[in-house]
Amino acid sequence: MSASTEVKAPVIVLVRPQLGENIGKAARAMLNFGLTELRLVSPRDGWPNPSAGPAAAGADEVLEQAEVFETLAEAVSDCANVYATTVRKRGVTKPVVTPEEAAREVHAAPGRSAYVFGPERSGLETEDVALARAILTVPINPAFASLNLAQAVILCAYEWSKGAALVQPTVEDLLPPAPQEELEGLIGHFEALLAPTKYFFPESRAAATRLTLRNMLTKPGWNSLEVRTMRGVLSALGRPARPE
Amino acid sequence: MSASTEVKAPVIVLVRPQLGENIGKAARAMLNFGLTELRLVSPRDGWPNPSAGPAAAGADEVLEQAEVFETLAEAVSDCANVYATTVRKRGVTKPVVTPEEAAREVHAAPGRSAYVFGPERSGLETEDVALARAILTVPINPAFASLNLAQAVILCAYEWSKGAALVQPTVEDLLPPAPQEELEGLIGHFEALLAPTKYFFPESRAAATRLTLRNMLTKPGWNSLEVRTMRGVLSALGRPARPE
Repeated sequence: MSASTEVKAPVIVLVRPQLGENIGKAARAMLNFGLTELRLVSPRDGWPNPSAGPAAAGADEVLEQAEVFETLAEAVSDCANVYATTVRKRGVTKPVVTPEEAAREVHAAPGRSAYVFGPERSGLETEDVALARAILTVPINPAFASLNLAQAVILCAYEWSKGAALVQPTVEDLLPPAPQEELEGLIGHFEALLAPTKYFFPESRAAATRLTLRNMLTKPGWNSLEVRTMRGVLSALGRPARPE
Repeated sequence: MSASTEVKAPVIVLVRPQLGENIGKAARAMLNFGLTELRLVSPRDGWPNPSAGPAAAGADEVLEQAEVFETLAEAVSDCANVYATTVRKRGVTKPVVTPEEAAREVHAAPGRSAYVFGPERSGLETEDVALARAILTVPINPAFASLNLAQAVILCAYEWSKGAALVQPTVEDLLPPAPQEELEGLIGHFEALLAPTKYFFPESRAAATRLTLRNMLTKPGWNSLEVRTMRGVLSALGRPARPE
């Protein structure tokens, strides 16, 4: 995957992060969805931070390449689209977007983009938000809006990744449903076994019963292997019982 | 937001979770997006677990209402749509969906739904996956697929919450898939009839054969009527043949 090297991959900016552990978790969340460019604005405990590595759980490349800046303005100076993430809307006159909308804009925008996250406890200051073109707010349960830093990062990275090339089709290796004639063979097998039993009685209901059975057996979309398995089951059931 | 009290809110099932801390984090992730029903299958350190509360960061109501089950089958017995979450596709013939697709299905489906998550280290076993109608896979960076439990939960809950406000019944007059316990009854019926035949021979293949059968029978999403019909078919096939 080279999504991370694509021009459109946004930068993740952590403003005055407090705990090294949370920086590591954010790095892990980023790399999970193909983001690699991390920028830190005045991390409280300096940088590098020994607590970050273990929490990154293998996302070391993100930490190693992390850049440190004095101010948010410097950290986003090369970015055309800056999103300030806040849990709740502030009383500012900027567009407010969801992670989904932001991701669409990031993919469409010609310049570089940045997602900016505030310190764990307090969030972004009004001055930080003022640097952003838009506010990114995760639509969260208002009765319990307790999103931590890495979770906010992962939701943004996840939404971005949907539009990136790294998303593979998911249903690719399912076998297709068996051809109709194999299905007919299976239905015929059922009917042949059921005929000698009282199953299709009374005669007046037989057609409807056959139809029900057919509808049921066409519903699964069983593939050829599965049809063959079910025929094996029927053969086993149709064998004369052991001598009694 | 009262999405959590809606009928359509899915259940979150943690199978053999190892750390109480992760159960707490999962509860927090759930409540962030309005999910409240947590079920635990054989948590390693028993339940309640003193480490869960602090990690839940206030999502105590989710932990207090959590239910404990011995087996996954019991935990999902009232659920019609069961999603097994795995990081990577397994070699099973079930549909594979993204969190987004699963959320759409959950909102459209008439019955209850469950998202099932495996133990932190190992993920779901093949036998667990066999109970599900579909596999839910987060499309993740294949070079760094290191999603932890709470992160997997939050992505699923987040996607579900997007559709929570605007729940339109789409497939309303289709009957929902039968509850899991009816499906278990059907599978048990098949196995009971097949046991006296040579079907599960040789013994070394029996477990795999049972698994294949189970996967096949969970695939159709048969409703209660259809399950009853198939049991009628089995009863007919199981009756002693007419005197010869």
